[in-house]
Amino acid sequence: MTPIASNPAVTIDDIAKAAGVHPATVSRALRGIAGKVSPDKRAEIERIAAELGYQPNAVAASLRTRQTNIAAIVVPDLGNPLFGPIVQGLERALRLHDLLCLVVQTPAAPAERRDLVVALANRQVSGLLILAAEDDDPMLAMARQRRLPTVLVNRGSGSRDFSSVVSDDREGVRLALEHLVSLGHRAIAHIAGPSASSTGRARHAAFVELVRGFGLKPGQVAEAEAFTRAAGQAATEQLLKGRARPTAIFAANDLIALGALDVLRRRGLSVPGDISLVGHNDMPLVDLIDPPLTTVKVAVDQMSLQAAGLFIDHLQQPLLAPSTRVLMPGLVVRASTRALVS
Amino acid sequence: MTPIASNPAVTIDDIAKAAGVHPATVSRALRGIAGKVSPDKRAEIERIAAELGYQPNAVAASLRTRQTNIAAIVVPDLGNPLFGPIVQGLERALRLHDLLCLVVQTPAAPAERRDLVVALANRQVSGLLILAAEDDDPMLAMARQRRLPTVLVNRGSGSRDFSSVVSDDREGVRLALEHLVSLGHRAIAHIAGPSASSTGRARHAAFVELVRGFGLKPGQVAEAEAFTRAAGQAATEQLLKGRARPTAIFAANDLIALGALDVLRRRGLSVPGDISLVGHNDMPLVDLIDPPLTTVKVAVDQMSLQAAGLFIDHLQQPLLAPSTRVLMPGLVVRASTRALVS
Repeated sequence: MTPIASNPAVTIDDIAKAAGVHPATVSRALRGIAGKVSPDKRAEIERIAAELGYQPNAVAASLRTRQTNIAAIVVPDLGNPLFGPIVQGLERALRLHDLLCLVVQTPAAPAERRDLVVALANRQVSGLLILAAEDDDPMLAMARQRRLPTVLVNRGSGSRDFSSVVSDDREGVRLALEHLVSLGHRAIAHIAGPSASSTGRARHAAFVELVRGFGLKPGQVAEAEAFTRAAGQAATEQLLKGRARPTAIFAANDLIALGALDVLRRRGLSVPGDISLVGHNDMPLVDLIDPPLTTVKVAVDQMSLQAAGLFIDHLQQPLLAPSTRVLMPGLVVRASTRALVS
Repeated sequence: MTPIASNPAVTIDDIAKAAGVHPATVSRALRGIAGKVSPDKRAEIERIAAELGYQPNAVAASLRTRQTNIAAIVVPDLGNPLFGPIVQGLERALRLHDLLCLVVQTPAAPAERRDLVVALANRQVSGLLILAAEDDDPMLAMARQRRLPTVLVNRGSGSRDFSSVVSDDREGVRLALEHLVSLGHRAIAHIAGPSASSTGRARHAAFVELVRGFGLKPGQVAEAEAFTRAAGQAATEQLLKGRARPTAIFAANDLIALGALDVLRRRGLSVPGDISLVGHNDMPLVDLIDPPLTTVKVAVDQMSLQAAGLFIDHLQQPLLAPSTRVLMPGLVVRASTRALVS
């Protein structure tokens, strides 16, 4: 493909004259504002603009306004089916405000996380939406230093500097445990998420507290090193080395639960025949697995909408104080849990 | 948050003098180039830059170089678990070339598709990677008009204007049919993808041709309106209204196969007891559903790598002719297909 033969001397007025329309019409047509200019007229204006060598230049415009209208969404793992719908919801909601979304995956190394935010800030993104930030995340320190409007999604942070939209972790754990206890389970184990993540820690703490609250003995806990199926497998192997076998497992997220399912199946243990299993998130397709997974349902659509709304608020009101929005989860009971017959 | 108190008069030389280092070191540190500057030194340089009010300005730099180093990935449906791993692979591969990725979802309306590419071109993205473009897609016409380097991923187009990386659809269908025929199936139906998509059409055409090639009678075909679980359900309802019931169904993708599974289950038909089912893609989690899905495996990792490579080639060599890379699929046999007992 040949480079664009642009002519910086050509202005919108030149195109307007050639097309016989008002310059504002040219501007609207070239910015692709729908509904204001007829498709035929727009095509004609674009043809004339191309012939004259006019090059609309959003970069120059953004230099004047200091607004790129680009939001950066930072996602830990695009391979995790939970995040597709969240990114989808954010992208849709932000596009309505004329924002396009850069989507980047969180690097593992702290220095790279820092560099990533530097690279985003240098591209003058309007701000960040960070999914699943970890505590003391270097991305947050850098976002603070570069004063980038930032909203945390699906996970809070130790800091009060940033707005966040989270699911109520304690309530999610309570729903899961209440369900298992009502089915007669007393020996309930937990496969926790990584303790470096606020979500991992919050669900673990809620588990310990609520197990006591339900009058049960402390349950076994194994920690998964990541919120992945592979880490769930490893943690389940660890858990099953323990003393007595639990009758139920509550996993910190669905992928960890799927890893547990792999290991239990490999050992010839039936879910829910031998062990009941509860996940967290209700990510796509867990209704179709064998057995369909009982899980805590995070209000993903609401999460995207609220996070996009908060983000826009922060863009428009630079002095707005950070706030946290907490969404209530639900419990979806499927076939991976059953009443304990004693 | 308060706006950045920037001072346009401050230059890299000023910072270098204050930090006692060479200007090139400052430049590297502020651009976040890893490994060249020690973390301590970088932190110090950033602190000094912040104190002096220096504001690195990638937008101004991109105006000079006409390079934003932003690639736009256009995805039809971020909720489809197939696309997460593809976007993930593209993002990783492109980041190694210092490109960040805008991820946008394809709008449904032709005019909006056109406008989307206009908006991307106006932001001077380096080029487009379009997943699942449709034939005569207005996005392609606009990409051509704006001379944006463009690579099509997972689907070709009628046009020879663009490079593409695709899975060999005919070979995928052949593998699926060969498997079913070897199991004794003779009445094989197809749930096709939308005929507006080249993939939908190619798999359908291959099905018709190869069924004949295997010496079978023409199979029933129902067309799904989209590559989604819901559209798969509707098409399966349609299919089952037909004459004799098939003993096997080949679905144009996994989500359509899952929709078929929903309907068959609702009607009390067992998979694979009554009907064998084959999908296409081997998207995440289809190994865990009940029954685990036999499916054509697309080489997703290769697809991302090759597409990213082609894209970089086109950026670096504006006159490079378009080319198509065809990847060979495999067949993953799981439990949704079984030998027909006659």
